[in-house]
Amino acid sequence: MNTTPLYRQLANHYLDAIRTGTLKAGERFPSIRLMMEKHAVSLSTAVQVCRALEDQGVLEARPRSGNFIRQPDKPKPPAPAAPVPLDSAVYVGIHQQVSSVLKASQQAAVKINFASAYCAPELYPLKTLQTHMAKTLRVDRHLLGAPGSACGNPVLRQVLARRALASKANMPAERIVITNGATEAINLALRAVTQPGDTVAVESPTFYGLLQILESLNLRVLEVPTTAHSGLNLFALEQMLKGPEPVRAMIVIPNLQNPLGSIMPDTHKARLVELCDEHGTVLIEDDTYGDLVDTEQPLSTLKHWDRNDNLIYCASLNKTLAPGIRLGWISAGRWHERVEMLKHTQTRGCEALSQLAVSAFMKSPSYERYLRRLRKILTEQRQQTSAAIIRYFPAGTRATAPRGGTLLWVELPRQLSAMTLFHEALKVGIQITPGDIFSNTQRFGHCLRIACGTPFSSRIDEALQTLGRLLDEQR
Amino acid sequence: MNTTPLYRQLANHYLDAIRTGTLKAGERFPSIRLMMEKHAVSLSTAVQVCRALEDQGVLEARPRSGNFIRQPDKPKPPAPAAPVPLDSAVYVGIHQQVSSVLKASQQAAVKINFASAYCAPELYPLKTLQTHMAKTLRVDRHLLGAPGSACGNPVLRQVLARRALASKANMPAERIVITNGATEAINLALRAVTQPGDTVAVESPTFYGLLQILESLNLRVLEVPTTAHSGLNLFALEQMLKGPEPVRAMIVIPNLQNPLGSIMPDTHKARLVELCDEHGTVLIEDDTYGDLVDTEQPLSTLKHWDRNDNLIYCASLNKTLAPGIRLGWISAGRWHERVEMLKHTQTRGCEALSQLAVSAFMKSPSYERYLRRLRKILTEQRQQTSAAIIRYFPAGTRATAPRGGTLLWVELPRQLSAMTLFHEALKVGIQITPGDIFSNTQRFGHCLRIACGTPFSSRIDEALQTLGRLLDEQR
Repeated sequence: MNTTPLYRQLANHYLDAIRTGTLKAGERFPSIRLMMEKHAVSLSTAVQVCRALEDQGVLEARPRSGNFIRQPDKPKPPAPAAPVPLDSAVYVGIHQQVSSVLKASQQAAVKINFASAYCAPELYPLKTLQTHMAKTLRVDRHLLGAPGSACGNPVLRQVLARRALASKANMPAERIVITNGATEAINLALRAVTQPGDTVAVESPTFYGLLQILESLNLRVLEVPTTAHSGLNLFALEQMLKGPEPVRAMIVIPNLQNPLGSIMPDTHKARLVELCDEHGTVLIEDDTYGDLVDTEQPLSTLKHWDRNDNLIYCASLNKTLAPGIRLGWISAGRWHERVEMLKHTQTRGCEALSQLAVSAFMKSPSYERYLRRLRKILTEQRQQTSAAIIRYFPAGTRATAPRGGTLLWVELPRQLSAMTLFHEALKVGIQITPGDIFSNTQRFGHCLRIACGTPFSSRIDEALQTLGRLLDEQR
Repeated sequence: MNTTPLYRQLANHYLDAIRTGTLKAGERFPSIRLMMEKHAVSLSTAVQVCRALEDQGVLEARPRSGNFIRQPDKPKPPAPAAPVPLDSAVYVGIHQQVSSVLKASQQAAVKINFASAYCAPELYPLKTLQTHMAKTLRVDRHLLGAPGSACGNPVLRQVLARRALASKANMPAERIVITNGATEAINLALRAVTQPGDTVAVESPTFYGLLQILESLNLRVLEVPTTAHSGLNLFALEQMLKGPEPVRAMIVIPNLQNPLGSIMPDTHKARLVELCDEHGTVLIEDDTYGDLVDTEQPLSTLKHWDRNDNLIYCASLNKTLAPGIRLGWISAGRWHERVEMLKHTQTRGCEALSQLAVSAFMKSPSYERYLRRLRKILTEQRQQTSAAIIRYFPAGTRATAPRGGTLLWVELPRQLSAMTLFHEALKVGIQITPGDIFSNTQRFGHCLRIACGTPFSSRIDEALQTLGRLLDEQR
């Protein structure tokens, strides 16, 4: 699909970063070694990138010091998109069902929790983060003396902009807004581009929290079939976009979709961006799980393929860093000013302390080390849990084998009910998430989500055995 | 207006607190001395309160230990309200103007800031709060290991419920939701009770941030005349409520209105609640400044007069405790479940650390001591600033003399322009807030808000003198 040579693609990527100010004039350019590592390219490609940028007068080589950035151009203004048309979307109406599942769980005495998408506390760098917080409190005596800046702390915004480069996305720090988690980011994205009554497309199945957000904003939802193998079904999407009803926005989790764990191939990512462009549908990317993908090279984001600034990128730190850190961010492209205004009127700027502590940690080399270790642990946990499911659950059960994260999606033989299992399991202190709440359709009644964020143990093994027994009793 | 004897009113107040669980069975009842202090009642009234509650079987006296609470009744279910009709409201359309004022301020090199409603950092207990935070970090190793609870930390909710009792309002802890500041609280209140296009009444002039929130939610705004003397003009409000257009909600700052500093007399508060009840208008109370009122006895809130659970109470801690603490709360009465749901879909639960640190401080006796000292300092600062304004500003200038807080509202002779002054002053590094942005009408073009949160000094005196000179040049 992309006929531009690889070195040219990468050179363009860094050119954009320089144009938009993420990399600044006078700064050192990423080393050949770093580029090879981050982008999984050969030595010769990395060298070609630098040479191309030197030829364009963007880099200057300083003997013994490496390459430095010369002079950035001005960013180009984004081209405007035209609005276009689909099928029959529904008002979500799922909140009652989700609430009743969540309330039942809260009221039960849960001993084994397969519902939480978080990792076990001991897998997070809690001590390191608390040390950074304590240090920030000691050093910055005026931390609480001024309100947080509206768009978030500049240091954290810069750290995030730099990291985004590695997944080949350009998000200048000045166009990032720090939010209260990805939840607020997605909320702001939807408030920025939709009106109540508009239709928004989502993957099906999708994270129930997203359906709740859509319902709270009085939006209509169009569910697009999605598979564990390659994510969103683009053919189905195209048919829907060609339908009579305009689809205002589409929300996608391209890497480690929740609940399927699917990863969209690059060609699909590129085509999705193109499709949304063609139909005037705003693409909203949720990259909350991107850092949990079990590969050394970060996968590309949808944002990377976005040429017309028709995409809003959202992400969160609380799944990768700590559940108690309520930080997310949004890079809203051409809607930046509107998102900034909405953030100001919705919650004002976030508190500074956790932003500063997180920045300090993410800037240190121990962050990457921590992520590598976490990914390895989670891979093991997924494999062990998955093996136990196949061992104990009824014949015909299938489970996904995602390339990262904590979530497994389990398909039972069709005649079995995950909702019945949910209620029976709660009675014995085991919590699962029934497939029913991941969609407004009845298509996932025989599915469930099993999270394996907690290190595998005999207790977990026994709990999975119990689930298998409860399913046998349904027959 | 209220013919119930004072002791009976107070007894009912505590009865409500017991019914709703803010005071629990088995707990010690407030001492006679505390009641005298908090409610400014005589010894005999306080004694009568206890006797009445003993007679009702609610209290039992234990020799040498004081009064204890016996057995709470169940709370009564709230009576439903009927929707009713008004006049001509407008879509706000003020955001551009407010933004341009705020942007101009951000771009200027401000040396003297009369625009910030916050106190100078040195007046806040920053060190104490940071110490509480550091201690929490040391003690609670798992602070960051779990997401914050959706409605907020239970300890802080209990602290706030207790404090509310002193201002004669009953807000059970279980029906309080901790928010990201009063901004989010008011946002949630409006999202809970309105639909885009609905009309909401506000005081005029009112805080421009509120007009921005209303605009961002696509609400129509009806401005009700308000005076520095006694706040909202109830006669005008009544006429508007009787008009053809239904007013869905009314937002009021009854104590230390922003920008006027007005305090509504108790009789007005009671009547306002009644009026909104009669017309099916939801009353939203913003009590952000209540703790800054310069009196020993807390003033009553509107919530105190609310008999039909037709009121949503919002408040914040960041003006009284520290600008960097982004905590507010909402007690939404019959809309509690809906607000809880919206909070969950908007930002999830707030981070725990500042909630715990603030709770520890607010539970300690030093919190009241701190507030008393702050009020005294602010009173001095208001008096000195006000005297300088009268000295330096053109003859005919009038300034409010509010009974607390940091804000003065200054009325210039009608031919003078506060917007011109704003721009001229910015050029010499002085920031004020022009009256124009406190309303969508043109009525406050000759007014400005001067905040005196910073200790008076010769620099401030000179800056006010400069403002006076700039005004003289306008003639």
